[in-house]
Amino acid sequence: MSKKDLIQPRTLKGFRDHPPASMIPREWLIDTARKVYRSFGFSPIDTPALEYTEVLLGKGGTETDKQMYRFQDHGDRDVALRFDLTIPFARFAAQHIGELGTPFKRYHVGPVWRGENTQRGRYREFIQCDFDTIGTESVVADIESVLVIHELFEALDVGGFKIRLNHRGVLSGMLERLELTDTSTQVLRALDKLDKIGPDKVVAEMMAEGGATEAQGREVLRLTELTGTPQDILAALPPLVAGSDSGEAGVARLTEILSGTTAAGVSSDRVQLDLAIARGLDYYTGVVFETFLESLPGIGSCCSGGRYDDLASLYTKERLPGVGASLGVDRLLAALEELGKIDAKPAAAPVFLTFFDEERRDEYLALAAELRRAGIGVELYPEARKLKAQLKYADRRGHRLALIAGGDEWERGVVQVKNLEAKTTTDVPRAELAQALLAQLG
Amino acid sequence: MSKKDLIQPRTLKGFRDHPPASMIPREWLIDTARKVYRSFGFSPIDTPALEYTEVLLGKGGTETDKQMYRFQDHGDRDVALRFDLTIPFARFAAQHIGELGTPFKRYHVGPVWRGENTQRGRYREFIQCDFDTIGTESVVADIESVLVIHELFEALDVGGFKIRLNHRGVLSGMLERLELTDTSTQVLRALDKLDKIGPDKVVAEMMAEGGATEAQGREVLRLTELTGTPQDILAALPPLVAGSDSGEAGVARLTEILSGTTAAGVSSDRVQLDLAIARGLDYYTGVVFETFLESLPGIGSCCSGGRYDDLASLYTKERLPGVGASLGVDRLLAALEELGKIDAKPAAAPVFLTFFDEERRDEYLALAAELRRAGIGVELYPEARKLKAQLKYADRRGHRLALIAGGDEWERGVVQVKNLEAKTTTDVPRAELAQALLAQLG
Repeated sequence: MSKKDLIQPRTLKGFRDHPPASMIPREWLIDTARKVYRSFGFSPIDTPALEYTEVLLGKGGTETDKQMYRFQDHGDRDVALRFDLTIPFARFAAQHIGELGTPFKRYHVGPVWRGENTQRGRYREFIQCDFDTIGTESVVADIESVLVIHELFEALDVGGFKIRLNHRGVLSGMLERLELTDTSTQVLRALDKLDKIGPDKVVAEMMAEGGATEAQGREVLRLTELTGTPQDILAALPPLVAGSDSGEAGVARLTEILSGTTAAGVSSDRVQLDLAIARGLDYYTGVVFETFLESLPGIGSCCSGGRYDDLASLYTKERLPGVGASLGVDRLLAALEELGKIDAKPAAAPVFLTFFDEERRDEYLALAAELRRAGIGVELYPEARKLKAQLKYADRRGHRLALIAGGDEWERGVVQVKNLEAKTTTDVPRAELAQALLAQLG
Repeated sequence: MSKKDLIQPRTLKGFRDHPPASMIPREWLIDTARKVYRSFGFSPIDTPALEYTEVLLGKGGTETDKQMYRFQDHGDRDVALRFDLTIPFARFAAQHIGELGTPFKRYHVGPVWRGENTQRGRYREFIQCDFDTIGTESVVADIESVLVIHELFEALDVGGFKIRLNHRGVLSGMLERLELTDTSTQVLRALDKLDKIGPDKVVAEMMAEGGATEAQGREVLRLTELTGTPQDILAALPPLVAGSDSGEAGVARLTEILSGTTAAGVSSDRVQLDLAIARGLDYYTGVVFETFLESLPGIGSCCSGGRYDDLASLYTKERLPGVGASLGVDRLLAALEELGKIDAKPAAAPVFLTFFDEERRDEYLALAAELRRAGIGVELYPEARKLKAQLKYADRRGHRLALIAGGDEWERGVVQVKNLEAKTTTDVPRAELAQALLAQLG
């Protein structure tokens, strides 16, 4: 085929290939999340990538709808690729909850697609990694959501992190006391801009858009000015929401959540109350959480979620309250890379077996098999080439140990073990090899 | 929302939801495959679900092309969902092999989409799970492909299985000797029907379509009549391909493969030579393998593959010979289910902690956390309900052990452990609980 007949190998804008150096950390992160989710009794589910557009659109009219990959299939059905895992879970729950029973705890890891503007550094295909408990209003499910995030971030070894909690009822309670309930959307939208535009402009916007007086605006901001331990903040809250049932219930719920997470061993410096979290409050109805890395707070929340009133009301009359969160896989991987916690050359198998002598092919194969049976991952180079070329290959792949067995070593019954990290070389008798490798791999 | 306003929750024809009972075995099977692939040094990659149609179509004109989910995206690009993982790998290799270097060993697990006729019991979305070594013609890569399949099926505990091998050169050599090379496609197509239509009709078709004499047809069938150990068959082959270079090379290659797999510890009853495998020989150029379960041979090959001359010739002038195979995930799961090897109720966490007393919520949370720190997955029921309802829940979920701690147990400092499989109940002191559970879980 002449060069001009070749098809140009390329991916679509906003879509990515993942070579091993990108994929090995992704598999590790997702495996870690799955292990933590399972240890709390969350079970995996999966749903189709492609669904009826009608099902995915729901009430429709949002920004996300316009970004859907939508088309007619071979049977002229109006279909689309899912753009999140929440709507498919709602549809799934409406369809199957009778046989599954409640409470139902699920996790779901899979790609979603959004035809977004890629200039904002966003991808059009990315992984979501969600967990939810539905069919119960118990605070235990709220507490466990915080515990899952805590265990997950500990397991990922991200260094210091803070789980920030808020409760929809506290903000509502404050607005109720100030008689600003009618314009709560506008007031909260202004509050959400606090970090960006500062308190004076937030108050001005509350006045202009939310019909608040300046005193009312300042009073709302008092919530965000409370500092100290979660206990200090909780103690200061009651007068701010006095007379509001939802405010008082919110304070009580936050108190129970903090008590439960402490009982389960979560250190108090991992959990903060942040009463300024207003984002997502149009969807969430109870507790809300966000998770920030202490060394990289600027990247935003790496795991966010909260409690909602009803998951699947678009599809069923059965009420399914729940609580859950979504792990930001891409964001966390970028952060771990920036923190130097990701191995740039992560070999799939830690040990590399060089290959010198076609006549001894079966002996190399037998040696590799013997080590694998001892639980050691071994990559055998497939061709007899010069040592230098093979070691260059191992260096590129990131193997930790290289084994050299040439004519001399085979005759002496030893294998030369090169530790490619420690730069040491030792001769090890064949009979002791597996033990020696396990010891060096730690 | 009134009932008639509800959106009907449903999936597209040919698409499936996977509830936990289906998903837990899938995750186990895929995890097992990944572990085996990695232990040989295969690294994971991923590619986008959506690609330029031009890239996926390749030369075009096949049955699969018509089944592609193809549409115009937001930027009016002609795009399609991938229908296998081979073409994306070819495109990936053409694009990245310079930086990755050869040999390159990759595995890839992911969904593919085909708008197939679902009446044949086929799905329009299914998982593929492939591994390949590219950039080397070494027999070591052929041997390792067989070893990977062997280790994988052993790890999956499927019972007896046979890996059947053939080599394109042996069939070509036979046809060369008989001067039937010009009509080899027709002759092999007839041979492929042997199981279905029997030897007489195969010979008749070879005569009608392939221009063979009856004697030539019978001679081709002699390949399929060779029985005995692989060594017996190899010993009988040379005269059948005498004078053909490709035939002799094929026999030599099969001999090396059998020698290597034996050296690596593969029992001789796991590997068979089956010179009737003609399927896929238009694509494969060297060794070909199929894998059959002894107890369910009728379901067909559960892992098939072979050696090819050049992976990525559509996209690059760099020649990339390779060898690999694809695991039939759906087929294997169906087989394992039929063989009773799949737990119908596989709980994500083995231990279930009942919950009776809201006043002691924090104590339940602390107990669950303590057990998780000991490495035991624990699901805590989130609400104080009657024991019977909670145990029914545990039974439905498939937990192995249930823990009961009511007022009496808390006071006595013990926890009642119900083994839901063995139907035993024992009181265990709190301090010994983790050890006792680990012992019972085995």
